[in-house]
Amino acid sequence: MGGRMAGEVELKGKGQALRMSVQQQLGGGPLSIFGAAAQKHDLSIREVTAGVLAELAVEFPNLEFRQRTSVGKSEINAKLRGFDERLGKTLFVERASIQPDGGITEVLDRHGQWRIVLVGESKHQGNDVEKILAGIMQGKNKDQDFMAAGNAIERMHKNVLELRNYMLDEKHFPYVVFLQGSNFAIESFNVVRPDGRVVHVAHNSGLLNRIDRVTASNLSRDINLNYCENITIKAGHIDHMCQIASLYCKHEPWSAGEMAVVMLEVAKTSLAVLDGDLKSVER
Amino acid sequence: MGGRMAGEVELKGKGQALRMSVQQQLGGGPLSIFGAAAQKHDLSIREVTAGVLAELAVEFPNLEFRQRTSVGKSEINAKLRGFDERLGKTLFVERASIQPDGGITEVLDRHGQWRIVLVGESKHQGNDVEKILAGIMQGKNKDQDFMAAGNAIERMHKNVLELRNYMLDEKHFPYVVFLQGSNFAIESFNVVRPDGRVVHVAHNSGLLNRIDRVTASNLSRDINLNYCENITIKAGHIDHMCQIASLYCKHEPWSAGEMAVVMLEVAKTSLAVLDGDLKSVER
Repeated sequence: MGGRMAGEVELKGKGQALRMSVQQQLGGGPLSIFGAAAQKHDLSIREVTAGVLAELAVEFPNLEFRQRTSVGKSEINAKLRGFDERLGKTLFVERASIQPDGGITEVLDRHGQWRIVLVGESKHQGNDVEKILAGIMQGKNKDQDFMAAGNAIERMHKNVLELRNYMLDEKHFPYVVFLQGSNFAIESFNVVRPDGRVVHVAHNSGLLNRIDRVTASNLSRDINLNYCENITIKAGHIDHMCQIASLYCKHEPWSAGEMAVVMLEVAKTSLAVLDGDLKSVER
Repeated sequence: MGGRMAGEVELKGKGQALRMSVQQQLGGGPLSIFGAAAQKHDLSIREVTAGVLAELAVEFPNLEFRQRTSVGKSEINAKLRGFDERLGKTLFVERASIQPDGGITEVLDRHGQWRIVLVGESKHQGNDVEKILAGIMQGKNKDQDFMAAGNAIERMHKNVLELRNYMLDEKHFPYVVFLQGSNFAIESFNVVRPDGRVVHVAHNSGLLNRIDRVTASNLSRDINLNYCENITIKAGHIDHMCQIASLYCKHEPWSAGEMAVVMLEVAKTSLAVLDGDLKSVER
């Protein structure tokens, strides 16, 4: 994050002016994440969310948006204390913050409050397909097609949980995570090595698959769907409003265009849920 | 877990019989975790929770308890589906399970249902004090007193979240985590190297402290307290019943006795919350 302070706003504004500052930030080139160039894989999720912001600016010219790279723990704690004074009391490192790699996108409501409409994250784990295609054997003795998957991905839950806490007073939870790599394959397939040998990649192998390590954040709902609008469930005698992360998994990289379409839809869902609190004139 | 199947029950029974099977499992020695020997640091949390189970058996002779090493994701998903059919639908690795290192302790209620009364976990991160005491410098060039802390601890949230999902129909959440090592110091202190140089260990340094990386699970409530009984808060117009992990942090190791006292108290809190559903006769 280049030494940026927690919570610093990177992009802010409305309509064409905001769209232009996004273009400037992206290096002046045309915003093409929704066009043909969107099939390129080499845009970072940060660049894609900037493109989504530009699109929101054009589609909702009367709404003011901003995008920032982080939320401070002190800000999360202050909000928790506002709900109940027993919460939000512990902070050891004053500048601690969370930094989802797709940033945090917000809209200004008609009460002057910034409301989160999109949080994006992208995670890659498992390079087995690339290794097999290159003919590289793995493991200590370099004699295995696959590397047993690790558990680093379990760290994903932290930021989801921080945002859940921050958004306990909202009826939407626009948290999108794109998971890619052989540890997130959703179907089995074959890969051919340079020497012609065919290697079967089993998507339901405990050695490789790590999707089950992240589904605590979506209460094991079906993956690859938009769960931005909260649902209420009854567990025994207790009602719970569930904040459910939208998890998108596959073994191939998610293209910029695919990510953009998903995130724009989630952001629009947020705006629909927030509608009563937004400046509804002229829309 | 030594090839054990997910959900296998290790210990089960009531009263003196259960106490004796715990003693047998612990190698036949006397259970002394609440006595003088409890200051020893070399008992694993699994041994300590077994000792807590033995104590519960004695204090509540009419209640039947069991302790197991894991809960299957399939079991968590089945419970979620029971709450709402939209939940609990995704499972890729059939035998996936969670395995908190202190096991899962349950009581049989008068409806024949096993109810969780205690889940324990123990995490160690940060060996700086030991290194300084031994006069060992750290870092790439072996010229630093401290090693910048990593973020592996963020994985803690996963099991907490899985248990939250599993216990959405309960009014208690008996999840205890003991965090120890220089990354969890709650006050600053000095350590003297063998050569006499005094090194100051700052507890609020972003280089070392990782407590802020785990407080999403306790909504930043004060640490080192028992939060087994859920609280209800109002966030905006929305009521939430909060399931809050009880996080216990310090830089020194938690002794067996300290852990036992905390976990027994949490288990008793669970029993008090569950009281109406237990066999209350003869207690």
